[in-house]
Amino acid sequence: MEMVEEHQIFAGKQQRWRHTSSVLQCEMTFSIFIPPARSEAPPVLYWLSGLTCNDENFTTKAGAQRVAAELGVVLVMPDTSPRGDAVADDDGYDLGKGAGFYLNATREPWAAHYRMYDYLRDELPALIRSHFTVGERASIFGHSMGGHGALIMALKNPGRFCSVSAFAPIVNPAAVPWGEKAFSAYLGEDRTAWQAWDSCALMQAAGSEAVLPTLIDQGESDNFLTGQLMPERLAAVANAKNWPLELRMQPGYDHSYYFIATFVEDHLRFHAQHLFA
Amino acid sequence: MEMVEEHQIFAGKQQRWRHTSSVLQCEMTFSIFIPPARSEAPPVLYWLSGLTCNDENFTTKAGAQRVAAELGVVLVMPDTSPRGDAVADDDGYDLGKGAGFYLNATREPWAAHYRMYDYLRDELPALIRSHFTVGERASIFGHSMGGHGALIMALKNPGRFCSVSAFAPIVNPAAVPWGEKAFSAYLGEDRTAWQAWDSCALMQAAGSEAVLPTLIDQGESDNFLTGQLMPERLAAVANAKNWPLELRMQPGYDHSYYFIATFVEDHLRFHAQHLFA
Repeated sequence: MEMVEEHQIFAGKQQRWRHTSSVLQCEMTFSIFIPPARSEAPPVLYWLSGLTCNDENFTTKAGAQRVAAELGVVLVMPDTSPRGDAVADDDGYDLGKGAGFYLNATREPWAAHYRMYDYLRDELPALIRSHFTVGERASIFGHSMGGHGALIMALKNPGRFCSVSAFAPIVNPAAVPWGEKAFSAYLGEDRTAWQAWDSCALMQAAGSEAVLPTLIDQGESDNFLTGQLMPERLAAVANAKNWPLELRMQPGYDHSYYFIATFVEDHLRFHAQHLFA
Repeated sequence: MEMVEEHQIFAGKQQRWRHTSSVLQCEMTFSIFIPPARSEAPPVLYWLSGLTCNDENFTTKAGAQRVAAELGVVLVMPDTSPRGDAVADDDGYDLGKGAGFYLNATREPWAAHYRMYDYLRDELPALIRSHFTVGERASIFGHSMGGHGALIMALKNPGRFCSVSAFAPIVNPAAVPWGEKAFSAYLGEDRTAWQAWDSCALMQAAGSEAVLPTLIDQGESDNFLTGQLMPERLAAVANAKNWPLELRMQPGYDHSYYFIATFVEDHLRFHAQHLFA
């Protein structure tokens, strides 16, 4: 593993690392923020980005390091898909590179590399534990496609995360255009296989051991709210199951990083409350 | 004047505007942050960016809107040079487009469009006053080439700004490689003409009416510190004249926006102290 960039920010370290992923069969890059020392084994908060992003969007635009430094939380920002010339791609911004949807693909030409779920569940956390001084406790959050990713990671791995949150997540990919396009390509046309990667279906099927504090912020002026996001569908499942989901509709905010920057402090404090509980 | 983008952030508005500049003889774009209403005529804080930047670098990376919203300060982020196919350019990143050096060029092929000083002194503030509800009071800050720009704007226009600050400014362009290259091209080889655009020379020559609170942050791990920036030269002039300059050397910080993001809150509060005095 090779460090390709390092900057000091808010008395912590912002680093970029490159490594060969055995799961994804390609070179991958991730970013990490290491706060100034407050505890011997700081908890880790994973951020999953949205369509077209890489590890740098959140790193440069969200303004999260200020609060993470204060709280003593490590931030890990992975890429959104496998990368490199050998990796299958598509002309659309919503399929292929930059659009891995945090699942394990089963169909060609995607199955060889598109295994972001296994990468995020196993390989990356092991790398983080072996190269950095971090504690056992972890939480996860993300934006849009990455909000979907954070929710499915938490729902499919009971006990793994202390809390989960999302900005404008795709909560029901099995039934909206972005998800239908990606799932058809990555998983094939049998829609029953899609349910394993759909937050609404996963929360519906979840047992009590999977329950965890869940926060969602959604801008009311988000162009994708109707048609792609529809967080009310997840809120309805949560409501029926008494799931501790807080859905906050935010008037005037859109789908951009300006929205994320506005509320990222709330999310960091939400996670810290559970990471340090 | 046409608005090309608008986003809500921290309950304020982040907007991008395009207009035809009669001074620069080209289409120009600037960004503006309008805080949530706190006063009828909020003061304006101008930000001048560094080499290769446009109006969006500070807008997306500095995290300044959070504090500007709290303080009730309008932020104006201009571009760093004239733009468009008709505008002269150079292959170097440090001359031509993205590198206007905030001066009025006198040599061809630059003189026709490269008049950023007049644009920033006259045309842009008039545009801001006529299209937005702002007060009379203004301050100015910037980074690197934009730190040079902020300092010369303040030094050449006594009484115009309440305060000036800079991150890693080029304080002595007449005597460092970046400035020597740019000034040779824009102003010609007669170095006496350069003194009118050099902060060290301007501060040396300034009368008491030009004195204003001045703050500079400089990262000690900045690759350009020795050779291009050398803030100690301005500090020496300030010291000899009893100028209220605070120069803060910041261990571990480099020339990037991670450095700016870390200390931008200090700069905003410094300016607010004088804007609202």
